[in-house]
Amino acid sequence: MDNSEELRIGDRASISKTITEADLIMFAGISFDHNPLHMNKEFAKTTRFGERIVHGLLTASLISAVLGTKLPGPGSIYLSQTFKFLKPVKIGDTITAAAEVLDYNQEKRLITLQTDCLNQHGTKVIEGEALLLLEKVRKE
Amino acid sequence: MDNSEELRIGDRASISKTITEADLIMFAGISFDHNPLHMNKEFAKTTRFGERIVHGLLTASLISAVLGTKLPGPGSIYLSQTFKFLKPVKIGDTITAAAEVLDYNQEKRLITLQTDCLNQHGTKVIEGEALLLLEKVRKE
Amino acid sequence: MDNSEELRIGDRASISKTITEADLIMFAGISFDHNPLHMNKEFAKTTRFGERIVHGLLTASLISAVLGTKLPGPGSIYLSQTFKFLKPVKIGDTITAAAEVLDYNQEKRLITLQTDCLNQHGTKVIEGEALLLLEKVRKE
Amino acid sequence: MDNSEELRIGDRASISKTITEADLIMFAGISFDHNPLHMNKEFAKTTRFGERIVHGLLTASLISAVLGTKLPGPGSIYLSQTFKFLKPVKIGDTITAAAEVLDYNQEKRLITLQTDCLNQHGTKVIEGEALLLLEKVRKE
Repeated sequence: MDNSEELRIGDRASISKTITEADLIMFAGISFDHNPLHMNKEFAKTTRFGERIVHGLLTASLISAVLGTKLPGPGSIYLSQTFKFLKPVKIGDTITAAAEVLDYNQEKRLITLQTDCLNQHGTKVIEGEALLLLEKVRKE
Repeated sequence: MDNSEELRIGDRASISKTITEADLIMFAGISFDHNPLHMNKEFAKTTRFGERIVHGLLTASLISAVLGTKLPGPGSIYLSQTFKFLKPVKIGDTITAAAEVLDYNQEKRLITLQTDCLNQHGTKVIEGEALLLLEKVRKE
Repeated sequence: MDNSEELRIGDRASISKTITEADLIMFAGISFDHNPLHMNKEFAKTTRFGERIVHGLLTASLISAVLGTKLPGPGSIYLSQTFKFLKPVKIGDTITAAAEVLDYNQEKRLITLQTDCLNQHGTKVIEGEALLLLEKVRKE
Repeated sequence: MDNSEELRIGDRASISKTITEADLIMFAGISFDHNPLHMNKEFAKTTRFGERIVHGLLTASLISAVLGTKLPGPGSIYLSQTFKFLKPVKIGDTITAAAEVLDYNQEKRLITLQTDCLNQHGTKVIEGEALLLLEKVRKE
C-alpha cells in the first residue's frame, strides 16, 4: 500500500504516557546515562531542580513512537531531528508527544514535522522538528 | 566543585556499547515505538535494509551518556540537540558515541559540542550538535 | 468520545512481532517462569521440541496489545480469555496476533472476539476467544 | 525422572510477587500493549478505576510460573488455559498465583488444574483452569 497520497499538511498524531522511575532505570541501562541528576535523589536535591528529573532523550523517545507507528508510521526513514529542552520533566509526569506535518514534498517523498512534548499541565517541555523520507514500500 | 575552568575547546570523551535485541525491546517498552522496521524480521526483509534496524533515538541515547556522565558531566543542563541519521545501525553493531567541545562561553557558561556516533567499522552513523548550560553547583 | 457505535461484527485488527531471546528473559523476569524448556538449551534438547520454545503466555500477550490498543482499544475492560496452545513457537518466529469481532451486544456493551496467533508460515499457533466490556468513557 | 506417579488430585502450589511499574513497562515492551489504562495516570483517572491498573495477562503470567516450575513443573506441555478477570490489580499489589490439581488422567497423562490469582487481601482477582500434557521425559 502506498500511504503517501493520504498525507496532508496539518495532519496530527500523538501518544501519551506517564514516566516512571522504572523508565529511568531501563533508559540508564540502555543508554549508560547514569547522570546523578536523573538517578540520585540526594545529588538532585543540591541542584536547581530539587529532585531527580527525567533524561531529556527519554522524554524525546516518545516522538520516535509517534513518527514510527502513527504519522507517517512504518515505511518512513528518519533523516534528522532537532530538540530544544524547554522545561524539566519530573518522575510521574504524563507526557504527550505530538507530531504535525509542516511540509510534504510528494516528489522527493520528504516530510517535515513539528514534534513537541507537553506535560499534563499543557506546558511544552520539548520542541523540535523531524525530517523523514517516506519509503516506497515494495509490492509483489 | 566548579569544573568549568577545566573545560577546553577540543576536549573529547566517548562511550561504547554493543546494541542487542534486548535493548530494542526495552526501548520499545519505554518509548512505545514498536515500528515493525525495528521489531519484525519479516517486515524488515521487505524494506531497503533487508533486516531489522535499531531505533535512531536508541543509538542517539548514547550521546546522553557521554554528555551526562563524562563531558561536561553532572552539573550540566541540556538545552538542545540535533541529530542527522546517516546510516542504519544493525542489531549487534558496537556503537561509539563521541563528544568534542566546539565552543565554551565561560561567562554565560554555555558549551557547544559536536556529538557523533560511529559503528565498529568507524563509519559515522549519526552526527549532531549539543548545547548545554554548565550549572554552578551550590557549595555549602 | 463514544466508540461503541463504530464496532461491527467481522471487524479485524492485528499486530506482529519477532519473538527474541530477550523477550523470554524479560518475560521470565516478570512472570518468574524460568521453566528450563524456555530458558535452558541443554534441557530443551532432551524434549520433543529439540530446542527452547517460547512461553505460551508470552506469545499470547500480543493478543493483549491488539485488544488494548486497536480493537476495541482503550476504554474496554477485559472480562475473560481462553487460549488453546496448538503449536510450539520458536525463538525468532514472527507472530501475528489477530482479533475479529464475533459478537457485539450494544445494550450490554459486551464484545466477543476471536483471538488467534499465527506464525510467519501462516500456521495458527494459538487460538482463543475474548470477552470485553466497552466502558462508557465519562465526558465532562 | 518420571514425576507422573507422584501427582495427586488436590495437590497445590503457589508463587507470589509484588507487581511494580517496572513490570508494566517491560510487559509493554514484550507485548506492545501500551493501553493508556495501564501506562497513563491522567487517562486512568478518567476511568472507573481512578488509577492505572495492571495488564490482565501480566498478572496471569504468574500462573505460567506455577505450572512451569512447580506443579506439574518442567516436562509438561501447556494445552489450554482459561482466565476470568474478576477484579482490577493495582501497581504495588502482591499477587499469589495458585494451582490445584482437579483431575489427572494417568493413562493419557492429562492434568487439569484450577489456576487462580489472589491479591494481598486474599481477594480472588483472576480465576481459571489449565490443561497440560505431562511429557514422558526420555531416560538414557
